[in-house]
Amino acid sequence: MTDPTPLPGFHDVLAAAARIAPHAHVTPVLRSRALDAMAGCELHFKCENLQRVGAFKFRGACNAIFSLDEAEVARGIVTQSSGNHGAAVALAARLRGGTATVVAPHSTPKVKQAAMLGYGARLVHCDTDQASRDAATRAVLDETGGVLVHPFNDARVMAGQGTAVLELLREVPGLDAVVAPVSGGGLLSGSCLAAHGVDPGIDMFGAEPEGARDAYDGLAAGERITGRRADTICDGLRAELGTLTFPVLREHLREVLLADDAAVVAAMRLVWERLKLVVEPSAAIVLAVVLARPALFRGRRVGLVLSGGNVDLDALPALFAAS
Amino acid sequence: MTDPTPLPGFHDVLAAAARIAPHAHVTPVLRSRALDAMAGCELHFKCENLQRVGAFKFRGACNAIFSLDEAEVARGIVTQSSGNHGAAVALAARLRGGTATVVAPHSTPKVKQAAMLGYGARLVHCDTDQASRDAATRAVLDETGGVLVHPFNDARVMAGQGTAVLELLREVPGLDAVVAPVSGGGLLSGSCLAAHGVDPGIDMFGAEPEGARDAYDGLAAGERITGRRADTICDGLRAELGTLTFPVLREHLREVLLADDAAVVAAMRLVWERLKLVVEPSAAIVLAVVLARPALFRGRRVGLVLSGGNVDLDALPALFAAS
Repeated sequence: MTDPTPLPGFHDVLAAAARIAPHAHVTPVLRSRALDAMAGCELHFKCENLQRVGAFKFRGACNAIFSLDEAEVARGIVTQSSGNHGAAVALAARLRGGTATVVAPHSTPKVKQAAMLGYGARLVHCDTDQASRDAATRAVLDETGGVLVHPFNDARVMAGQGTAVLELLREVPGLDAVVAPVSGGGLLSGSCLAAHGVDPGIDMFGAEPEGARDAYDGLAAGERITGRRADTICDGLRAELGTLTFPVLREHLREVLLADDAAVVAAMRLVWERLKLVVEPSAAIVLAVVLARPALFRGRRVGLVLSGGNVDLDALPALFAAS
Repeated sequence: MTDPTPLPGFHDVLAAAARIAPHAHVTPVLRSRALDAMAGCELHFKCENLQRVGAFKFRGACNAIFSLDEAEVARGIVTQSSGNHGAAVALAARLRGGTATVVAPHSTPKVKQAAMLGYGARLVHCDTDQASRDAATRAVLDETGGVLVHPFNDARVMAGQGTAVLELLREVPGLDAVVAPVSGGGLLSGSCLAAHGVDPGIDMFGAEPEGARDAYDGLAAGERITGRRADTICDGLRAELGTLTFPVLREHLREVLLADDAAVVAAMRLVWERLKLVVEPSAAIVLAVVLARPALFRGRRVGLVLSGGNVDLDALPALFAAS
């Protein structure tokens, strides 16, 4: 019997790279001598904040939506998102000539809501917990007959997200380790598939907020944790691992590293000041975890995925005050 | 009789590019579909905020200091600066194995003072007006016997600054126009030399704050204006044209375009939000002037020099409130 949801592999990442190439940016990799000195290692930042819609999410959404046939696109795309994936789906749907409906928590930052609307999405609001998100999403699917492009628990999305690390490893051969944020696990599992396919010796790390540590605890316990309420400034990292991302991480991930919100905000300031890049808290966490564990990275060549740059500038003073 | 201070030419820009190549970054050129749509033209942003020390200033300082002989370096480098040039001189001097003293106004942003000190400079404070800066600089030169590397009125500095636009025109052939900020005129005159050498048909524009419009008024009147007191949020654009930069601009510049502080802050927000780049007000002014003059640029391919990204994040709320 065929598994109805086979896990994606390295070949899917390669196929995704080819599929999204006409639409996605090849983002630059930047460095900072000052940050290298602070971290005691060589840091190579993959700038997905410079990706279309300001986040890596465009890769996965683009791969998924450009994998659909015309009839599926015509039914309309439906997804749930705290912001970046919704914007990515809206843009990719528009590029395919389709429409998108995004189920978004009330707490979604204004800048991200505006972006989704700007790309032509219809927004449906819901509460922040996963059960509310899922219920609202089911209701929209029933109502519209649309096609679901899940933000992370989708093999095409996972493979698409993996193309960022594929590019990183092509531009900077010989990395010893790669660190990517983990929320639902789409980016991190895709990154694992890409890195494993290029060089199985690369150490893969996830960066997760203390206040949303389901991946840390779940991978330690050997089973997915669901139903917790996330409490973190990282608005893009409040989801829980999915049934497809969990097994990929179990197989390929070396460790999940945790950071509290104060460390995330401090790292965000460093990225703004030293790399001159606008990144959101959910992206800056990769630097926070590396700075917190110097022994793990000392002298090594480390790739870090700066996952996005969509932050409310008006909320900035409050954000910095939170540190 | 030989002119003691000959004006630099295109060949000096080419020589500078070769001289600084081992030390300076080739910075990326970034684009934004959203900003293109707002401006009604094609915008190509040369990201000198990603240059070493966070500003184009490293190019000129590096070219000047690596042009000196060992005996000159040993005497110590002296300069005056509101921040970025001082940091650039400090770093370039250190790379040459020398030392730097920087005469800086009391009003210099803290982040820029910290950067100069971080690169090993000795700071000497003075008042903000040009006469005070010059008097303090002369005093330091007399006291130390050091070598002056002026922030803009120096052929080697002007040629070095021109390398940014040289790179831009190599990466993006066929630009119709280039816009760079103007303060003392080092960057803008060097940019003119570079552009004229590559293609004399490129329209060159300066971007200047309303509150420091000596270049606008001086070029209109046909003679340099000095002794005014600048009043603008653009802390890097408060100097007046020099005896070497003025004639180059007179020969090559199409027009100086003005922007008030509110337009500069609005443009800065756009760059942060859309390009995901941290830029300082003095850099964002190039976008402000283009957005203010749509008829001048409509449908054209325009290069903009984002000159630097050194901004006090703590001062941000006040900065945005000023708009």
